This record gives sequence, C-alpha cells and structure tokens, in this order.
Amino acid sequence: MTNSDQKFTVLSGGVGGAKLVLGLRDILGADALQVVVNTGDDFEHIGLPVCPDIDTLIYTLADQANPETGWGRRGESWQFMDALAALGGDTWFRLGDRDLGTHVRRRELLQNGLTLSAATLEIAQAMGVPTLVHPMSDVPVQTLIATAAGEISFQDYFVRLQAQPVITGIRYRSESSAAPGPGALQALAAEDLTGIIIAPSNPWLSIAPILSVAELKSSILCNKAPVIAVSPIVDGQAIKGPTAKLMDELGIGASVVGIAEYYHDLIDGLVIDQKDKQHRAIIEGMGIQVAVTNTIMNDLQDKTRLAQFVCDFAMKLGTKPGKTLRQSQGQSA
Amino acid sequence: MTNSDQKFTVLSGGVGGAKLVLGLRDILGADALQVVVNTGDDFEHIGLPVCPDIDTLIYTLADQANPETGWGRRGESWQFMDALAALGGDTWFRLGDRDLGTHVRRRELLQNGLTLSAATLEIAQAMGVPTLVHPMSDVPVQTLIATAAGEISFQDYFVRLQAQPVITGIRYRSESSAAPGPGALQALAAEDLTGIIIAPSNPWLSIAPILSVAELKSSILCNKAPVIAVSPIVDGQAIKGPTAKLMDELGIGASVVGIAEYYHDLIDGLVIDQKDKQHRAIIEGMGIQVAVTNTIMNDLQDKTRLAQFVCDFAMKLGTKPGKTLRQSQGQSA
Repeated sequence: MTNSDQKFTVLSGGVGGAKLVLGLRDILGADALQVVVNTGDDFEHIGLPVCPDIDTLIYTLADQANPETGWGRRGESWQFMDALAALGGDTWFRLGDRDLGTHVRRRELLQNGLTLSAATLEIAQAMGVPTLVHPMSDVPVQTLIATAAGEISFQDYFVRLQAQPVITGIRYRSESSAAPGPGALQALAAEDLTGIIIAPSNPWLSIAPILSVAELKSSILCNKAPVIAVSPIVDGQAIKGPTAKLMDELGIGASVVGIAEYYHDLIDGLVIDQKDKQHRAIIEGMGIQVAVTNTIMNDLQDKTRLAQFVCDFAMKLGTKPGKTLRQSQGQSA
Repeated sequence: MTNSDQKFTVLSGGVGGAKLVLGLRDILGADALQVVVNTGDDFEHIGLPVCPDIDTLIYTLADQANPETGWGRRGESWQFMDALAALGGDTWFRLGDRDLGTHVRRRELLQNGLTLSAATLEIAQAMGVPTLVHPMSDVPVQTLIATAAGEISFQDYFVRLQAQPVITGIRYRSESSAAPGPGALQALAAEDLTGIIIAPSNPWLSIAPILSVAELKSSILCNKAPVIAVSPIVDGQAIKGPTAKLMDELGIGASVVGIAEYYHDLIDGLVIDQKDKQHRAIIEGMGIQVAVTNTIMNDLQDKTRLAQFVCDFAMKLGTKPGKTLRQSQGQSA
C-alpha cells in the first residue's frame, strides 16, 4: 500500500512515542501527520516552564535529540549544572546548557501572551519542524502519583526518586476541567483521518493524561477513523521506563493483555510484538483486532517499518464495520 | 607602614571598584576588609535575580572573573545563548552558561527565604571568598536614567543601548525608603575602621545608589574614620565606562574637579592621578586633602600598590582634626 492521501493523528508521550512518530513522519511526510502530546509531566523548574514530552518530540523531529542520554539535546554541555552544583544548588533535575535555551524561549513566548500551543508551534518552526506538535491542553494538567509516603508530582516520582516508589494510584489534576488545546482538538476531531494511533508510550503516565481531557477522549471515541494502539509491553517487559513495574503495582500484571484491557473501550486495533502472539486470541476476544509484528525500534529502519505496519493496519481496519459497535460501547461507558 | 590591625570598608560598583578591592584584599587579608556594593543595577531577567556588581566582586575575589569580557565568569561558554538565539529569543543581555548557575542559585536561596545579604554570603562562601561582600540593601533600589526618549532602566541604558543615550537625569527608586542591608550598615557604622574608601567606580551610577540609602550615607558622615575616594577620572577620561560622557551630559564637565565637587561633603581625602596634579590646589580649596599617584590599575601589582597608597593616605588622615568640621558640614547639608 502507498501512503498518499493518508492522514494520521498520534497520541504520544516522550521517548517511546517519539520513535514511532519519527518513523511515521518519514513515511507520511510532515503534513500528513499531527501529534497530540502529553503535558501532564510539565512543571515549572527554576522559574522556567519545562515540557519534557513536547521537547522530546520536537528535538527528535529536528534531529536534535541527545542519543547519549535519551533526553535533552544533541551536542549538549553541562556548564550550568556544574556551576550550580559547585554553589550547592539543587541539581536533581538536569538541564543542559542548550536545553535551557528552549525553556527560556518558551517562558518569553508565554509571557508575551502566547498560549502553550502557539509557543510550541513557534519553537517547532524555529527548529525546522513543520510537523504539527500539539499540547493536549494549554492549561496545566498535573499527573500526581499516590505512594505509601503520600502524593507526589510526576517529576518527583520519575526523576528525583527515579521511579522507585510503589505506585498506589494516579490522578490528573487541572485547575478546572481542562480545556483541550485547540490544535489537539482539531487533530483528533478531523473527519479525514486514516487513523488515530496511540504510540507505545506508558498508558497510565503518558496517554491517560491526554484522555483525562474530556473533549479529547470524546473526539477519539466519535471519530470514524480506526484507533490503533501499539503495545509498550513486549513479553512482560517495558521497552523503556517504569510501565511494567507500574502495571504490577497497580495489580494489572505486566502483560500485553493488561494493555488491551486498559484501552479496550477506546481502540479498534492493537499492535503487539511477535513474542506476545500467544495472547492474540484473548485480546481478540475483547473485540480488538490484533496485528503481530516486531515492535522493537532500535534504528530508523525499525521505526519506519513499524510505522508502515501500523498505517497498513489502519487502512485494513478502516473498512471494518466493527467501528460503530466500539463507539457505542465507548459512549455508554 | 604596615597594615596590621587596619580595617577598611569599601564602597564599590563593578569592574573598576573590584580592581581596587582585589588589591586591598591582597594587602589587608580577607578579614580586615568589607565591601558595600551597589545593587541599583540589579534586575530580574528571564525570571532570575541578576546582581551584576555583586557578582563582579565575588567572581573577582574568587579569581573567577572573565579576563576576556571584563564581566561574567572565567572559562565561560555560550551554548545557552546560542540556543536561545537560534530559537529567536531575546539576547540583548548575555548570560554565560556558568554565570547562569549563580543566578539560579541566588533564586533558590531567595525563594528559600534568605535575604539578598544572606544569599550573597552563601554564594561567596561557596566560591571560597571569605571577604564580606554586602549588598547595600536587601530591598530593590533601581537606578533609573532620564533621557530625551523618557526614563529607562539602568540595564536598558548600559547594556541594551550601550550607554549611548544622552542622560538628562538619574534617580534611585525603591518601593519604600530603602532599608540598608544589615551587613552594609554594620560595615559603615563600625567604630574601629581605619578608613572608608570609595572605589574608583562611577559616582552617579555606582556610588550614588549606595548613598541614596539614607542610613548608609549618615553612617559614613558620622563615622570618625577618614573617608577617601579614588577618582575614576584621569586626565578628563574615564578608565572604563560612561563616566566622562555622563559628566559632560550632566553639565559637570569630565574632570577630577567635578568628582571632588560631587563628593566634597562626604570625603576627607581624594586620590587623584599624577596626570591631574595641576588640579590639586582647587580641590584642596574645597577642604579635601589630596594625594597624587598613578591610579591606573592594569595588573595585580598596580592594584596592590594603589591599595597600599590609599591605606597609607587613610592612616595619615586619621589623625587630622579636620574630620569634625566635615561631619558638621555634611550633617547640615
């Protein structure tokens, strides 16, 4: 199949999602792809608005992502952090010298009255990224982690405590009912989509915050395009990050079946790894179409191959009558 | 003369003052010297509290001053500024990667509830500087420059507009009547001082903001120790910065005589350069003792030699009966 005239919107968190987004951009081109990004990890640090997932996506698409750290910018230096450390400063959240430029520029743009969506567009364009990267919301939505020691912020959990605390619950807090980002809403409500793709990001920490914005979730449920998730769990393990640990702690069990159960009222199809093909029947029993392939993305070839596989799966599902059934299930939930 | 048991307090702005302070520290030792520093140039930039003169003094005393730029830190890099510029950010005020560490640490300390005086002490100690460097005030005092195009901030005048506008007036604004910094007040009210030295900083832009804090000025006037200024003007020229240009614009005329007139109710002695010795009589006619030497400080030897010269002058003045007269003049002014 060719990808001409195909259009996709992707829901993504940071690193894992960015890999698939990069593959999709390479096969679809910049204009046929829009990305709705988690902002539940965003926080203010040293007075600067830090948006880890937005930056990971833009850096990745700009070929500016740091291959050594997996986060931050390519060719990074650490003079600021070293100087701050020497003065006894707080260094649990590491900001590279070049990365700082992004946060300071974002601060300027927000102070000039731009929304986070508009500021993100400006930064992406300045970095030569034409692909539309939309914050899920222009108002703060904060992912909060319940632990035995109390509720903590996502960055405290993920960076400061290195994802070590046992999670007993998660919630997504906004000042009021969070309004969707205008670009995010448009990207998910578009009538000409070939498919909506949920990237292999952490469902609870990266995708659920997006779905916590009610209008975004209902736009996905009401969109006639098929919704496909790519499992972030392979053979009971997460490719990266605390997904498997978190699933165990939440009593779900780290398995692709848990991913299917979590997404079952939202998705039409699930892409699972060949190592998980024995779970195919149980997932199909939930009314979810399953496609099996190698989902590990080590190099660009892996990314474009998986991206093409997902696009082809969407084209196949697009003609399925099952779509209507899923929608009515979702709306009654 | 030897410097044992001598104690001095210096009023200082940035670069020019720091040179003499470094010389004084080298001959007196760290404990016999305290510095009261101008904070009228301080401002918030990209959300960070920037204190140019405090930092210039601490960096100089820590041997961390940048010899290439004359400001900022030694071994500096510019990755942050380059990244910010590439994103279209505001780059008129250049912050090096290492220098940023200082401002972020200061922000942390202030947010933790420390005063600017306490935060400055903490940063100086972390940089291995035992000499007490006191902000003139812990509350903001802002030097404002009147120009034909309206009133502008000091940094707008000095950095953004590179001191090009014609100055028609200067004022020093604080939220309320500015309280003196506790260390600054103690350093100027101390009864065991050998002398109070006004460094060769810009009188209007660096020293006048300190004197605008009423309790600091009265402490100087009431202190029995002799007050000595070192002229920042040599042969009608400023060693550095816009002092001469400013004197012309204010109608004073760029001459050591104008410096003497400006300080005449405050000082007992003025150190002038040998190139200005023809002005000795007119300055002495104002009731100011004059000492003539080479005041240009190019290397460390120049700094310690001038420092020793000023200390010796203070010892000589310390026994003069004229002190009482100056105080009554000053208090009645």
